[in-house]
Amino acid sequence: MSKLQIKKVTVLGATGSVGCTTLDILRDQRAMAGRDSVQVIALTANQNWKKLAEQALEFAPEYVALADAEFADDLRDALCGSKIEVGCGPQSLLTAAAMDANWVMAAITGAAGLPSILVAAKRGCILALANKESLICSGALLKNTCAQNGTTLLPVDSEHNAIFQVFNPAMKSMVERVILTASGGPFRQWSAKDIANATPKQAIAHPVWSMGAKISVDSASLMNKGLELIEARHLFDVSPDQLEVLVHPQSVVHGLVEYKDGSMLAQLGPPDMRVPIASAWGWPARIQTNGKKLSLSDIGRLDFEEPDIDRFPALKLARNAMNTGGNACNALSAANEIAVASFLQGQIGFSKICEVVEFVIESGDDSGSNWSGEPGGFEQVFDIDHRARLAAQTKIQAL
Amino acid sequence: MSKLQIKKVTVLGATGSVGCTTLDILRDQRAMAGRDSVQVIALTANQNWKKLAEQALEFAPEYVALADAEFADDLRDALCGSKIEVGCGPQSLLTAAAMDANWVMAAITGAAGLPSILVAAKRGCILALANKESLICSGALLKNTCAQNGTTLLPVDSEHNAIFQVFNPAMKSMVERVILTASGGPFRQWSAKDIANATPKQAIAHPVWSMGAKISVDSASLMNKGLELIEARHLFDVSPDQLEVLVHPQSVVHGLVEYKDGSMLAQLGPPDMRVPIASAWGWPARIQTNGKKLSLSDIGRLDFEEPDIDRFPALKLARNAMNTGGNACNALSAANEIAVASFLQGQIGFSKICEVVEFVIESGDDSGSNWSGEPGGFEQVFDIDHRARLAAQTKIQAL
Repeated sequence: MSKLQIKKVTVLGATGSVGCTTLDILRDQRAMAGRDSVQVIALTANQNWKKLAEQALEFAPEYVALADAEFADDLRDALCGSKIEVGCGPQSLLTAAAMDANWVMAAITGAAGLPSILVAAKRGCILALANKESLICSGALLKNTCAQNGTTLLPVDSEHNAIFQVFNPAMKSMVERVILTASGGPFRQWSAKDIANATPKQAIAHPVWSMGAKISVDSASLMNKGLELIEARHLFDVSPDQLEVLVHPQSVVHGLVEYKDGSMLAQLGPPDMRVPIASAWGWPARIQTNGKKLSLSDIGRLDFEEPDIDRFPALKLARNAMNTGGNACNALSAANEIAVASFLQGQIGFSKICEVVEFVIESGDDSGSNWSGEPGGFEQVFDIDHRARLAAQTKIQAL
Repeated sequence: MSKLQIKKVTVLGATGSVGCTTLDILRDQRAMAGRDSVQVIALTANQNWKKLAEQALEFAPEYVALADAEFADDLRDALCGSKIEVGCGPQSLLTAAAMDANWVMAAITGAAGLPSILVAAKRGCILALANKESLICSGALLKNTCAQNGTTLLPVDSEHNAIFQVFNPAMKSMVERVILTASGGPFRQWSAKDIANATPKQAIAHPVWSMGAKISVDSASLMNKGLELIEARHLFDVSPDQLEVLVHPQSVVHGLVEYKDGSMLAQLGPPDMRVPIASAWGWPARIQTNGKKLSLSDIGRLDFEEPDIDRFPALKLARNAMNTGGNACNALSAANEIAVASFLQGQIGFSKICEVVEFVIESGDDSGSNWSGEPGGFEQVFDIDHRARLAAQTKIQAL
């Protein structure tokens, strides 16, 4: 095997759901193409040192990074005797991202993922992006950074990956609509009153996808889909009015692109993150995987309906933010992170999530910012993120 | 506009459904891109001289050809005073096909379309193929002829056009399955007994597509889908066991390709031949058309089920022929044409169509042929077509 064919891989956020699935695929690919076909450069985690140590012992990376330094000694003890270098604290994530992997999975959730993504983007690599906040908060900046440094951005969100597979950039002028599907979440058929009183447990019980708590709540409010609209706008460089959301409870059709000649192309697959991750892994070719394949006759029926903006105002908030600009999108995402955390801790009710976000976006913050305009640089991105979080916290305390 | 951009168009079979729709698109494109953007070289018809004359007066081709010489004088009178040259008789179709159009729509139905398709293929052009029999009867020969003469074959059947749009030839080794959808026809939910007694009127009443009588009957028996399996095998060069049929009554998803990484790509569109014709017209780019666009939320629901081979044995016959070889596929198609014509004339019952076809395929003909092997040349193609028709007629008379 030539050196060119060897994939040198770093997984930022290796112990989460997407990180673990990425390593599953890596394991399978090694079994098929030989152990030397993939070399693991670095793995990172936030707090889960046990799983990180386990992964490190199996995949033998050069470096592991744990963001939370509190568990540094535990991780070091677990890897004692191995040749794996251990780094701890937020800076260690940047060290991991700076190492020379040519394929990087960015699977750290939230705005916390942005710094390490930036480091990887500046290096020139294939950047498989499972973190949506980086695009939402700093879409144009991140895309420019990638373009200037020869980094290819591959979306791993199932919806964006689906669209990526059927969106021909050479025919962008002939694209009529880009459609993201939404399962509709656990409250799809609930009344507005019941939704308002939903508990964290109910919000996390997603009907189709198995995901982390924060993104499950976002799926329940449809804020996740609103954020994905913003993400799609950056990824595919289409106008907001070309972007649509279609509720599709079975989550089999993940995304569609309609062309001006009436052809609509779609990607379908089982609701399993293995599929979009495998697509990003194999790009620009494809790989063979062992996952369960889709049988449309077994499923039998696919439903589609328009989203209800009245019961799910998050979609409207996201659209408004998208029309206002990049800073408003950043503030929307940050305020939502705080509001969701508050909801999960039982501090506010479900319907208050959107109320808090709407208040922050409409009122601006104490410094008089109304979140207008586009960020001039990443400093401003972090600043707006910080201020929107504060504004959300202030609002929550006043409720 | 440069001369290279001018599309020089011939429509073989201009007065049928596909031919008329092609001219609709041509009219729209001229309205958008200017009259000079498209130059019509030749139009042909079988008997419908009135419509052909009307089309000729609108589109001003250099040449019109009418296969049935009986109406030659009518056509000449109708075009008297125009500068349009008129040809009649079967040879005139070949004259039309030989003229220097760079985009040819082959929309003559049945094996009768093959000679003119061959003439066009030998010239080097973009050949939009709405005639399925040419591939079914002589797939390998026709493909070789195209390859040797720089002709690009674009499928216009909605299913094959759908698959063509999402089938990446560069990743053929990573294709798991190619799936053709079938509406299931008017007898999808009928009992075997009711199907056996179906009348021509019932068989022609297709629930979704508006088509000619012969293809409507083929849709009712699912022979159409069986023939399309054979067509797909040639177009995409996949093995018979990679090809599947999926019943989908709404006819919104026209075809799917499943890759080995679990991604399934599909083309969707309204059940309107404008869409695949527009795709072939625009290829390798896309065009803007005025047709009604697809709304999945308006449709609301898509159903999928496995085809029932017991009630629809045509699928099994086609699969068997595909496994036997090219000559058997040719005989299948020819025997079916005769049996369907007999059914439409009230000579045999609906279930006898498949019985006749099965008998012809299994018994061979008087010359002792068992239809094995691949055709060595087009002479053999025409010979087998002729002998299978005779065998079918003999069988029908003996019923």
